[in-house]
Amino acid sequence: MAQDNALSAIDEVLNASYVAFLSYKNLDGKKKGAFLRAIADEIDQLGDTLLTTASAETNLPVARLQGERARTTGHCRMFAALVEEGSWVEARVDHAVPDRTPLPKPDIRKMMVPVGPVVVFGASNFPLAYSTAGGDTASALAAGCPVIVKGHPAHAATSQMVADAILRAAKKTGMPSGVFAHVDGTSFEVGKALVQHPLTAAVGFTGSFSGGKALLDYSNQRPNPIPVFSEMGSTNPVFLLPESLAKNYRDTASKLAASITQGVGQFCTNPGLMVAMEGQGLDDFVSALSEEITKCLPGTMLHPGIASSYHSKLEKALAQKGVQVEARSSATATTHQGAPHVASVPASEFLRNPLLAEEVFGPFSLLIRCKDKNELHAVVNALHGQLTCTVIGEEQEVKNYLNVVNMLVEKAGRIIINGVPTGVEVCAAMQHGGPFPATTDARFSSVGIDAINRFIRPVAFQNFPDALLPDELKESNPLHIWRLVDGAWTR
Amino acid sequence: MAQDNALSAIDEVLNASYVAFLSYKNLDGKKKGAFLRAIADEIDQLGDTLLTTASAETNLPVARLQGERARTTGHCRMFAALVEEGSWVEARVDHAVPDRTPLPKPDIRKMMVPVGPVVVFGASNFPLAYSTAGGDTASALAAGCPVIVKGHPAHAATSQMVADAILRAAKKTGMPSGVFAHVDGTSFEVGKALVQHPLTAAVGFTGSFSGGKALLDYSNQRPNPIPVFSEMGSTNPVFLLPESLAKNYRDTASKLAASITQGVGQFCTNPGLMVAMEGQGLDDFVSALSEEITKCLPGTMLHPGIASSYHSKLEKALAQKGVQVEARSSATATTHQGAPHVASVPASEFLRNPLLAEEVFGPFSLLIRCKDKNELHAVVNALHGQLTCTVIGEEQEVKNYLNVVNMLVEKAGRIIINGVPTGVEVCAAMQHGGPFPATTDARFSSVGIDAINRFIRPVAFQNFPDALLPDELKESNPLHIWRLVDGAWTR
Repeated sequence: MAQDNALSAIDEVLNASYVAFLSYKNLDGKKKGAFLRAIADEIDQLGDTLLTTASAETNLPVARLQGERARTTGHCRMFAALVEEGSWVEARVDHAVPDRTPLPKPDIRKMMVPVGPVVVFGASNFPLAYSTAGGDTASALAAGCPVIVKGHPAHAATSQMVADAILRAAKKTGMPSGVFAHVDGTSFEVGKALVQHPLTAAVGFTGSFSGGKALLDYSNQRPNPIPVFSEMGSTNPVFLLPESLAKNYRDTASKLAASITQGVGQFCTNPGLMVAMEGQGLDDFVSALSEEITKCLPGTMLHPGIASSYHSKLEKALAQKGVQVEARSSATATTHQGAPHVASVPASEFLRNPLLAEEVFGPFSLLIRCKDKNELHAVVNALHGQLTCTVIGEEQEVKNYLNVVNMLVEKAGRIIINGVPTGVEVCAAMQHGGPFPATTDARFSSVGIDAINRFIRPVAFQNFPDALLPDELKESNPLHIWRLVDGAWTR
Repeated sequence: MAQDNALSAIDEVLNASYVAFLSYKNLDGKKKGAFLRAIADEIDQLGDTLLTTASAETNLPVARLQGERARTTGHCRMFAALVEEGSWVEARVDHAVPDRTPLPKPDIRKMMVPVGPVVVFGASNFPLAYSTAGGDTASALAAGCPVIVKGHPAHAATSQMVADAILRAAKKTGMPSGVFAHVDGTSFEVGKALVQHPLTAAVGFTGSFSGGKALLDYSNQRPNPIPVFSEMGSTNPVFLLPESLAKNYRDTASKLAASITQGVGQFCTNPGLMVAMEGQGLDDFVSALSEEITKCLPGTMLHPGIASSYHSKLEKALAQKGVQVEARSSATATTHQGAPHVASVPASEFLRNPLLAEEVFGPFSLLIRCKDKNELHAVVNALHGQLTCTVIGEEQEVKNYLNVVNMLVEKAGRIIINGVPTGVEVCAAMQHGGPFPATTDARFSSVGIDAINRFIRPVAFQNFPDALLPDELKESNPLHIWRLVDGAWTR
């Protein structure tokens, strides 16, 4: 019943979004900025109730959710500043050359415009920062696209609270009605109808491979396929270089144990694979890591479905040929908890068995033991697309593995040296995205200011009278934005 | 037999491309620039033989091919200059803040890197500028991607000559073997195998809707779909505003007649639809346009297949309910020629009959007669995605149609006021691309410096020792490129 209602409401929602789009897209950066800042303010004003509601729905601790809220309001204000400044439209001006021979050159100007209504599917593992007012929503609204959020059923109350905050912000700042909508419904049919509605222009999703790939396929079944930005799975391999490992095995073990178990391993950047070469250094590392992992406590996972999926995928991985458990949490886990585990497998087995390359979402990491550099190279070549790849080694030693780093650039959106993959900084230089199957489109980031690039496209204006041009392209540059004018950057 | 050979050679070609990629991608801008400039020089050195060969294969006049050759060498040198300067990598540097609370901020830097081997399908209507050394090839090579060109069978000898020129340029400038390859074969199987090869990273295509959509579908059948940039069809609607038309009908008719018949109508930006409101001004315009069209001579089309497709699509369009021939060339056309035609149809019929919105590739344009502004708006709303939309009207009158212009921005990649859509300027502000079905990806241009954006993706480098960073991201900015450093543009 509820689902039928949701389905029948979708057409109405998208029509309202599109009407809103035709005026919202033309709002200046100051007005869109005020809206985004008001969203941040309204979320702040939800106070502790938001945190306790989210914690009750997701089992995430309030302290973590405090950080997530700061990140959410932070990216709303970051995108506000971006559109208030205005240069994000990548304006280009090429003046006419009427006396050029053999043909005159016309006046052509170009800027980015929003694509249209964007459907956002909230993530289960980030009830605030990647959900209703998450990075997808904030970047789409900044671009000038109305947003329709399909709330995640695992934190429906949290999603509704944030949606109401956005709607209040829209009203207070005079945004067109329909600029934001929140859609319920747990069935696949609702998601499919949202992606396939003729007025939907783009889709943002964070979740499982099967979910994200299904949305891409729905789009490709449309008469006019649309961009689908699914962030799906990643095992975020960590390469441990032998000499550095022998020296720093204890520190490395402690950092990796923390990264593997942080948030019950429920981060898309969780280090699910470690790759190292056999030797005393590795033995010492495994002992130290095992010691740490044994001490780590199981944690309640986001929802029962995620816990049961962790248990079954873990069991399956551990049952594969050559896989050996190295360490597990010494405490007993309840049905809804995930217990930290580390296992290892010879590279030869890993290379033979595609199942071992699949993500086990939770506090688990698989160590791939390589006999030599050749096996290590074979593992690098066999990697799927990843959000991140990490190399742990001192500068002098990394220099001997530059061909590995060169190859990892082909495999991931972010390469880290001497760090852990967890912790995704919200900044201009962040790339959160990577080659398929990590995401459906490695050319875009879902974090940082460049996330706005997912929801825009260029339009050229040829031979327009100055008065009819958008302000961004007028001759006098009234917005004082950076523009490429006849080949030179000016302001 | 030849096709079997081509099929079996594809794996070898792609493997060689990928090996080349792993070194070519790291060449500095000066070396890639020298390669692109050498390609231009080698093409120039082919002299008149290239022009006469291309003319014999395509029936295009030598004068037109001279222009096309200048454009081809021009964009090779334009991309050379772009990569020699270097700022195209969109470098971003965010410095570490080790004492930030609650967590330290790591050093993160980001730049664009090439995606991998690119397969280019040459266009039949531009044997030089959109084919073997066309904009797709030049922009992919500039990005750092090896290119595999599938030569167009309609100008195989021209394609081979240009391919040989590129290979000579590669040798002379010391490029890795495999940086460029030329593949023959006329079967769909060859195209499919090229798109579906695991090492192919992106595809560029210019041609028919059925061809371009098939390539997109091949990609979507891959385990890892890849970007496909198909430029397919466009009817490039021209809106004739009534008051301006009444004043300038003669001048408008003469410009449009030239645009419709230029190059036997074989441009992707050919104005295949005109939209106007009934009235004396329109009647005068139709008379004047008919006079011009009657005088235009038929021309030999690119190849017999294109001529026969023009004849059958034209016949089908003219046979639709409500369609009335307004003018045709007074000269008789041979089987391989296309004769200029203009027809008209009431907007009510156009809106009812989807066939009339389809492109008739050749010297044909359909005038849609609107009873009033409402019908004109309905036509605007019903338009498919287009490469271009044009509004012909004086500034004062266009101001009364701003909602039409606002809506046309949703329909096309380039909006022209008081001009014709034919003539695609190669410059930074050009957008050659538009919403589906004009292209498969409205977010990218196949013309101008931004065409390079199709073949790159961002990679973030976190916590890298300075010596291990690419030059583009080193602290001292040794390449002196524009970079966004901690939020500010610097050089």
